[in-house]
Amino acid sequence: MVVILITGGARSGKSKRAESRARGFPGRPVYVATAEALDAEMEERIARHRVRRGTDWIEREVPLDLVPALVASDGGGARLVDCLTLWLSNLLHAERDWEHEVNALAATLLHLKSPVVLVTNEVGLGIVPDNALARSFRDAAGIMNQIIADVADEVEFVVAGLPMKLK
Amino acid sequence: MVVILITGGARSGKSKRAESRARGFPGRPVYVATAEALDAEMEERIARHRVRRGTDWIEREVPLDLVPALVASDGGGARLVDCLTLWLSNLLHAERDWEHEVNALAATLLHLKSPVVLVTNEVGLGIVPDNALARSFRDAAGIMNQIIADVADEVEFVVAGLPMKLK
Amino acid sequence: MVVILITGGARSGKSKRAESRARGFPGRPVYVATAEALDAEMEERIARHRVRRGTDWIEREVPLDLVPALVASDGGGARLVDCLTLWLSNLLHAERDWEHEVNALAATLLHLKSPVVLVTNEVGLGIVPDNALARSFRDAAGIMNQIIADVADEVEFVVAGLPMKLK
Repeated sequence: MVVILITGGARSGKSKRAESRARGFPGRPVYVATAEALDAEMEERIARHRVRRGTDWIEREVPLDLVPALVASDGGGARLVDCLTLWLSNLLHAERDWEHEVNALAATLLHLKSPVVLVTNEVGLGIVPDNALARSFRDAAGIMNQIIADVADEVEFVVAGLPMKLK
Repeated sequence: MVVILITGGARSGKSKRAESRARGFPGRPVYVATAEALDAEMEERIARHRVRRGTDWIEREVPLDLVPALVASDGGGARLVDCLTLWLSNLLHAERDWEHEVNALAATLLHLKSPVVLVTNEVGLGIVPDNALARSFRDAAGIMNQIIADVADEVEFVVAGLPMKLK
Repeated sequence: MVVILITGGARSGKSKRAESRARGFPGRPVYVATAEALDAEMEERIARHRVRRGTDWIEREVPLDLVPALVASDGGGARLVDCLTLWLSNLLHAERDWEHEVNALAATLLHLKSPVVLVTNEVGLGIVPDNALARSFRDAAGIMNQIIADVADEVEFVVAGLPMKLK
């Protein structure tokens, strides 16, 4: 049905914007968290997002298997995937074939019945990182964002909490 | 009255744009510098900005106490605050409660008579920094930008010297 | 004639967009590569770009002398310069006067007959780099982008493969 991609920098208000877009659809929304609470910094961030979102969401922790999770939850309310860059990072750590997974996600998004709102990050607008791993990651994130933006019905770029319509 | 937030990257033309917006209001403009000339790099940057601006500005150096400075200078020409990210950095170094200060600034901006043009930086669009302090700073800067953008009447994002209207 | 500047982050789809803009003009397009294949990472990137572009382009490797190359190739199809940030980096390594060269490029662009599409990078939207050289580079890149954007007829900012019109 409808696929919306929300991109932006760290603490730009992307998640809040995505929550508001997901709530705009009928049905009980599903929160698909790609984050795992592996350290105190992440735990605190997850807890803060949960407080803001409210308790009426169905919650799923999906660090890796996003495609099956979206298929399994299809037919109900909108799904909010927060966020794709963390999913990509999880795929890389697990040594999965990220290009294959991203293309499979794009193909799946074209055939779902319930809306999907996806959050991602822009990470390529700073100085080239010294470290080769960081360079590969930002390349992969940029390629992923292009692939998902290409199949999305709407794309928004959020700066200082304010969305700009890209598509 | 009018609150304008100008955001963008390093050397994107934010200050020049903000100066032009501040000059668009009647009265002698007030330049509120949050920078202190602590090293040669900063001194040179401050001097260059002053040359471009011209000598008809009232100048104030306000590294920390922005709210009292805006209240004290209210009733005359437009104030240009350049820039909020440096102010935030000064607050953190001085171990002030930055969230309290940012919220106090937002509340004050709603009640001033003369226009205020504020410059800030987008710092969250690169790779996640390795260092925890840099991560906290970019989180704080993103939150500050959202809070100030929320009370601003206009927000512009400047890229390559060209403003995009966000609000 | 027509000068188009395409800016954006790493892997944002800038080059692809610029290729499509350059192909929109009549005549055989000229690909002006500022990259030199100095290591395996660059070689692979150059090869991938060539595959996407197709084989009908006239190719020129111009790491430094962009102004003479644009003058020499004038009168035929559109020139695609990919990219200005690498050219700037080459100028700095060669200890050339980059400000002089950038201003000479801007002056030349105003007087060419055939279209020029230039790709550049936004590198100033992350955390301030620790290292002084990286700080000077991002300052220089920001200044260069402002100077070229000022003489361009069109400027686009590409995010996730999608262009936003800045000018």
